[in-house]
Amino acid sequence: MLCYFICNMERTLIKDLGQKVGETVSISGWVDVRRDQGKMVFFDFRDRSGKVQGVVLPGSEAIETAKETKVEYVVSVEGIVNKRPEKNAQADKQNGNIELEIKALEVLSVAEVLPFPKDEEVNLDTLLNNRPLTLRSERERHIFAVQATIVDAYRRSLKEQGFTEFQAPGLVGSDAEGGAAVFKVGYYDGQSAYLATSPQLYKQIMVGAFERVSTIAKVFRAEKSSTTRHLSESTQMDFEMGFIADEMDVMAVLERVIRDVVGEVTEKNAGAFTVLKTPPPALGEKFPILTLAEAHETLGVTPEDDMTPEHERAICEWALKEKGSDFVFITKFPTASRAFYTMSDGAEGLSRGFDLLFRGLEINSGAQRIHGYKEMVTRIKERGMDPDKFSFYLQAFKYGMPPHGGCSTGLDRFTMRMLNLTNVREASLFPRDMNRIDVLLTEPGAND
Amino acid sequence: MLCYFICNMERTLIKDLGQKVGETVSISGWVDVRRDQGKMVFFDFRDRSGKVQGVVLPGSEAIETAKETKVEYVVSVEGIVNKRPEKNAQADKQNGNIELEIKALEVLSVAEVLPFPKDEEVNLDTLLNNRPLTLRSERERHIFAVQATIVDAYRRSLKEQGFTEFQAPGLVGSDAEGGAAVFKVGYYDGQSAYLATSPQLYKQIMVGAFERVSTIAKVFRAEKSSTTRHLSESTQMDFEMGFIADEMDVMAVLERVIRDVVGEVTEKNAGAFTVLKTPPPALGEKFPILTLAEAHETLGVTPEDDMTPEHERAICEWALKEKGSDFVFITKFPTASRAFYTMSDGAEGLSRGFDLLFRGLEINSGAQRIHGYKEMVTRIKERGMDPDKFSFYLQAFKYGMPPHGGCSTGLDRFTMRMLNLTNVREASLFPRDMNRIDVLLTEPGAND
Repeated sequence: MLCYFICNMERTLIKDLGQKVGETVSISGWVDVRRDQGKMVFFDFRDRSGKVQGVVLPGSEAIETAKETKVEYVVSVEGIVNKRPEKNAQADKQNGNIELEIKALEVLSVAEVLPFPKDEEVNLDTLLNNRPLTLRSERERHIFAVQATIVDAYRRSLKEQGFTEFQAPGLVGSDAEGGAAVFKVGYYDGQSAYLATSPQLYKQIMVGAFERVSTIAKVFRAEKSSTTRHLSESTQMDFEMGFIADEMDVMAVLERVIRDVVGEVTEKNAGAFTVLKTPPPALGEKFPILTLAEAHETLGVTPEDDMTPEHERAICEWALKEKGSDFVFITKFPTASRAFYTMSDGAEGLSRGFDLLFRGLEINSGAQRIHGYKEMVTRIKERGMDPDKFSFYLQAFKYGMPPHGGCSTGLDRFTMRMLNLTNVREASLFPRDMNRIDVLLTEPGAND
Repeated sequence: MLCYFICNMERTLIKDLGQKVGETVSISGWVDVRRDQGKMVFFDFRDRSGKVQGVVLPGSEAIETAKETKVEYVVSVEGIVNKRPEKNAQADKQNGNIELEIKALEVLSVAEVLPFPKDEEVNLDTLLNNRPLTLRSERERHIFAVQATIVDAYRRSLKEQGFTEFQAPGLVGSDAEGGAAVFKVGYYDGQSAYLATSPQLYKQIMVGAFERVSTIAKVFRAEKSSTTRHLSESTQMDFEMGFIADEMDVMAVLERVIRDVVGEVTEKNAGAFTVLKTPPPALGEKFPILTLAEAHETLGVTPEDDMTPEHERAICEWALKEKGSDFVFITKFPTASRAFYTMSDGAEGLSRGFDLLFRGLEINSGAQRIHGYKEMVTRIKERGMDPDKFSFYLQAFKYGMPPHGGCSTGLDRFTMRMLNLTNVREASLFPRDMNRIDVLLTEPGAND
C-alpha cells in the first residue's frame, strides 16, 4: 500500500498551514465535516494539530473522489493554501483566515456511516460504549489532552524538587491491610495474589534509599459503588519525602506541584476551558489551611470525624469566596479514621493527615507517617493486624527511616474537577466499574 | 517529635558542601560507614545527593552520641566544613577534599544491626529478600537512578516528536487474543476480568483520536518461566503513530528515542557505568537493519522463522564489531509468528514487524499494523478468533484508521542491558515471578 501524497510530498501539519499561504502543500488527516454543495464540496480536515477548511472547486480533478469521501474517511490532500477574502475570515478560529483549494484527494481508509455525529452531546453510556469514536470529538480530545498535561507537569514539578521516579508494582502478595475491597488474582499453582490498592508501602521503602520519590501508579478497588466519583481502576500520582519537620512540609511541596500543574494547563490547554465552558482554577495567594474542627466551625455545623460530600462542597465555596482559591487543605483528622501508618499529633487522638479539596472534591490525601520501627509495630498490632504479614515493609523501618510523609493525587478526579465534569468516568479514557469494562458487562449478576 | 537541627538551621544537601568551606552547616542523612578510633569517631554520611566524611574530635560535645550511633542510623549533624590537608584529599571522590568537623549530632532514627553489610555482593535471593535494605547500596541506587533517567528521557523524546501520553488500563474484560498466559481476576459478582498483557489495542484506539500516542504501562504475563529475562509483571514503554509509509517510519522514531535515552543516561548517570563496571552503549552512525534472512545469512546459519537467543547474541556481536552499534534492528519476520494485527509485507508470508536487539537481547518489538476494517476482521477470523469479542476495538477501524504502527520497549530489559546485568530481576525494583512477590512464596505448589 503506497500513499502517493505522503511519500512524494512532505506532509504539513494543519497548524502550520498559515505560514504557507500561496504554496502547494500536502496534508493528511480525517474528514471532520463535509458539505456537498453540488458543484463544489467543502471539507473540514482534522489532524493531531488542528483543523482547516478545504474546498474542491468545480472542474477539479478531485471532484469525483470528493463526492465519495465521507465523514471520518482518512485522506491525504494536495492543495494550494489560499487567503480567504476578509468578509469570509473567522478571526477567532484556527486557520479561520485561510482555505485549502484541493487539487488532489486520496482516500487512505474508508469509514462506515457514524451511529451519531461524533461531536453530538450524548449520554454517558453512549459516550463510553462508543469510546473509539467519541474520543475523536473536540470535547473528548480536550479532556485527555488536559490529562496528559497534568501528568507531565506533575512529574516535572516533582523532578525539579529533587524527586526520583520509580515503578510501583500492580500485583501484591497479600491484602495485609484488609479493610479496603481488594481484587483477588489467580496466581501460579492455585496461589492467590491481589491488585494493589495503593503504592504506599513501596513508596516508604523507596524513601529509605532515595529520600524523595514519586510514582504514577494504577490502583484497583473492588468497591461496590456506583457514585460519580469512584472507579474500580484509577491512576494515582504519588510522592513521598524524607526529612520533614511535619506534614506542612509535604503540603508545601504539593501546593507547588498543583500550582505548576494548573499554570501549565491554563497556558497549554486554554482551548479546553473554552470548549468545556469552565474557567481555569483560581489559585489565590496561598491555599487556605483549616483543621477539620475549624472547617466545621466555619460552616457552622456540628463537628464530626470526617467531611461529608456536602461539607466538602460548602468549604470549597467558602475558600473561593473568602480566599480566592479553588483549593483548600483540611488537616488534623482523627488518627482512628486514617491509615495505620499515619503519625499521631498530640494527645487528642488527632493525626498529621491532611486532605486537599478542589472545587468540592477531595483529590489528594496525605500525611506525615510513623518512622520509628517499634512505634510502627505497635500501631499495626493496635489495628488488629499481624506484623509478620508486613515483614518485608518493616525492614525499611528496622534499618533506619527518616521522619517522612507524602500524599497521593487521583488523576481522574483532578482532571474531573479541573474541567468541572460531573462524573469521574468522563475523566477516565477507559473507565472500569461494577458494570463496565469497555463494554457493559452482561454476565449474570453484572447489573446487581 | 522536634528535629532540633532541621528546624533551626536550614539543611544543606551533601552535594553542596564543597561550596561552604569554613562555614557551619547542618546536614541530614544516614550513617553509611562508621569507624571508631577510640578518641575520635569517623563517619561517612549519605543523603539523596551523595556522601561526605565527618569526624567527631576528642572533646567534642557530640562524642557520647557518636559512640552510640551505628550504621544506617538516621541523623542530623551540625558541623564545620573543613578543607582536608593536600595529602589526605581524594580527588576522584565526591567531597574528597573536605571533611565535616562534627559539633553536634542528633539521632532521628535508630537502626538494628544489619544482617550483612549493605554494599556487600550477595546472591539474587538475598538481594531481593532484603530489598528495603539492599536498595540503599551504591550499586542498587545507581541501577534505579538509571531506570528513572530512561523513563524520563524516553517520554520527553516522544513528547518532542509530537506524541500525547495516555493511561492504558491494567484490567481488561476478556482474554480475547488467547495464547499468551493471562492472569484471571475475580471481578464483581462472580464475574472474571483479566490483567492486561499489552496496551496494544488501546494504543490503536488512541491513534484514531490523537495520531501519535505513548503510554508507560504495566503488563502481566502468567508464563511458567524462570528464565533470566522474563517477569510476571513488567513495565512497557509503548508508542503508536498514524500516517506512516511503512514500519521504517516507526523504527526511525524509535531510533531517535533510544539515542536520546542513551545520551541522557550517559551524561546524567556516568557514575553508574563506573560502579557497574560496564561501558555506556555504543550507538554507531546508524542502527544496522537486517532482515531475518540477512541475519541468518550473516551468521552463516540455517534460515529459521525466528531468532534463537544464541543468534540474537551473535548478531549483536557482529553489529558492534562491524557497525560500532550495540543496537541492531531485525525486520521481515514471518507474519504467522507475529500478533494478529501485524501488517503483511508482500506475498512471501513475511510481515512488517521488527525487533530491536540490544547487547544480545530483544528489548523492543514493533510493526506496521493492519488499518483496514475488513482486512482486520478477516485476519481475526483466520487466526481462529471471534471478531465479536473485539467489537470495541474494531470500532476504531470501522470509523477510519490511518496507516499506522508502533512498538513496545521493555523497561526492565532495557535497564538490564544498559548496565549489563545478568538477570532481569536485578533491573526490577520489586520483581514478581512464579516464586516471588516481594518474599518467596511459600504456599503449596509455590516451588513446583
